[in-house]
Amino acid sequence: MLDQRLLPTEETWYAFTDYREIAEAIRSMVVRGAPAIGVAAAFGVALAAKELALEPKAHFETGLTVACAELAATRPTAVNLFWALKRMQRHAVAVGTNASPTEITARLLEEAQAIATEDEALNMAMGRHGQTLLPEKGTVLTHCNAGALATAGYGTALGVIRAAVAAGKNIAVVADETRPFLQGARLTAWELQRDNIPVTLICDNMAGYMLQQGRIDAIIVGADRVAANGDAANKIGTYSLAVLAKAHNVPFYIAAPISTIDYSIPDGSKIPIEERDPTEVTHCGGRRIAPLGVDVYNPSFDVTPAALITAIITECGVAHGDYGRSLGAFR
Amino acid sequence: MLDQRLLPTEETWYAFTDYREIAEAIRSMVVRGAPAIGVAAAFGVALAAKELALEPKAHFETGLTVACAELAATRPTAVNLFWALKRMQRHAVAVGTNASPTEITARLLEEAQAIATEDEALNMAMGRHGQTLLPEKGTVLTHCNAGALATAGYGTALGVIRAAVAAGKNIAVVADETRPFLQGARLTAWELQRDNIPVTLICDNMAGYMLQQGRIDAIIVGADRVAANGDAANKIGTYSLAVLAKAHNVPFYIAAPISTIDYSIPDGSKIPIEERDPTEVTHCGGRRIAPLGVDVYNPSFDVTPAALITAIITECGVAHGDYGRSLGAFR
Repeated sequence: MLDQRLLPTEETWYAFTDYREIAEAIRSMVVRGAPAIGVAAAFGVALAAKELALEPKAHFETGLTVACAELAATRPTAVNLFWALKRMQRHAVAVGTNASPTEITARLLEEAQAIATEDEALNMAMGRHGQTLLPEKGTVLTHCNAGALATAGYGTALGVIRAAVAAGKNIAVVADETRPFLQGARLTAWELQRDNIPVTLICDNMAGYMLQQGRIDAIIVGADRVAANGDAANKIGTYSLAVLAKAHNVPFYIAAPISTIDYSIPDGSKIPIEERDPTEVTHCGGRRIAPLGVDVYNPSFDVTPAALITAIITECGVAHGDYGRSLGAFR
Repeated sequence: MLDQRLLPTEETWYAFTDYREIAEAIRSMVVRGAPAIGVAAAFGVALAAKELALEPKAHFETGLTVACAELAATRPTAVNLFWALKRMQRHAVAVGTNASPTEITARLLEEAQAIATEDEALNMAMGRHGQTLLPEKGTVLTHCNAGALATAGYGTALGVIRAAVAAGKNIAVVADETRPFLQGARLTAWELQRDNIPVTLICDNMAGYMLQQGRIDAIIVGADRVAANGDAANKIGTYSLAVLAKAHNVPFYIAAPISTIDYSIPDGSKIPIEERDPTEVTHCGGRRIAPLGVDVYNPSFDVTPAALITAIITECGVAHGDYGRSLGAFR
């Protein structure tokens, strides 16, 4: 696993053999991005199974349940985490009542690998569908990192941009730095530079001014959880961008796989919003930037109402209008 | 002069004796904030006069003109800089054709001191007028630092908050950290903590989410230049806040002295917007946070259209509605 906390200045890779290390890596944001968290959790289940493979079946099953619960308790907002854990647990059951722990373990590793492979493929499908929405020539603003680093590869929002560029479109990207964790400055800028896609880095509070100047043609971001009605939780700051996009009549797109859609909740008010450690705000670049003892509010996500979202791009196609119906059709 | 770049972790004071040091301090943001820049520039002119006091009158006058031009070339957006320089130059003339350089020098020092003393007094007047707009109990969001550090004392936007608290109102403040220079995290949080006014620090991109949650009752900020029609240039990010305030039906106030109003320009499109060094964005807390060679856009200010401003608070009173008329009345 590439340590995303150290990019772009250091490229440090870890080889984890214990699912508890995976849980800690998700919690501490060595890996982040809803789809990537799902893939990481799936491999966590595979590692837990490996650890338990020689145990009696009952122990194996209990151990697996405990590991899934530990992996589920790492971060609350991105639904892909719970989706991947559920898929792995269902797969363990589907292998059959007579299967041995060793057999189930082998099949769980295959399933984790399948989740990863599928994720990259469906990002490319999202790219094909979504790129038709982007202009032949234009500037697209994105927030946080919804790129290869946030997925098993290619990316959701950045996948759409990559597909547009691959289709010959002339696309420049404006990347919000995305405080406090700086995924835009550290990850999105780095990814796009490596792909030779023109990217300009701004602070989050500059996006409105660029919209006012007419310098942004579209906004595209990923999502951590989309409710059945299309309300979308994504990195803090996304909601403000959606309000600003509306005020400037600029389209606002969400790119997210079906695994990010939580059909079990009717609207965004039911999405739990993670609050993270105040030191993410009081410190930057490893240094204290605020007085000691200052109160901090640090929500990691916000919810953008469906009414502000021009379209939701999935691997099954582009959903518009009444999302209850249009997203429902992809179920 | 207190080095505002090092706050809140270090309190370092400088004693400048050369106006060139003042110019460099303004340029490099040792001092910042429109009124404080004006006061600093006035003392710069006094120092230049002192340096030239024993020269023949013609040399003295030319030298003073050169010094004023150097001080004027430091930062383009805040109009108080040019206002203070003009006032000092007019004062030098007003002393009389027969006055010696030594006499003029003494009078220029008095005038710089008068500008500083007046600035604090008019901030307190602004506070008296403005505090009536704030609720008996509520949460006020501010951006950047429009406090004692941005003025000769008391502050513009923070002066209004201070006056409300002094009047017995129960006011809590939410401070935007204000990337890239972090005036909110470093200066506003520090000032309010010292005054025991409750303050919660957030990243700039969190303000919209707090407005959505109904947790903000008013927004109040300073200004660097206000056009005759009420369009107001202020720290980058202010425009976005004004759009968000409108979308959530929350009042949006500007607090600025008359010296910040540029009656010579009809609207905000004529206000020059400073762009500063990309390293302000690529670095934070002294450390690189973005890949090498990334393109950056770093405008320091944006312009909020008058239509988004609920009221403009000045030392002469509160302007509403048609600012051409209401601000014009204070001229």
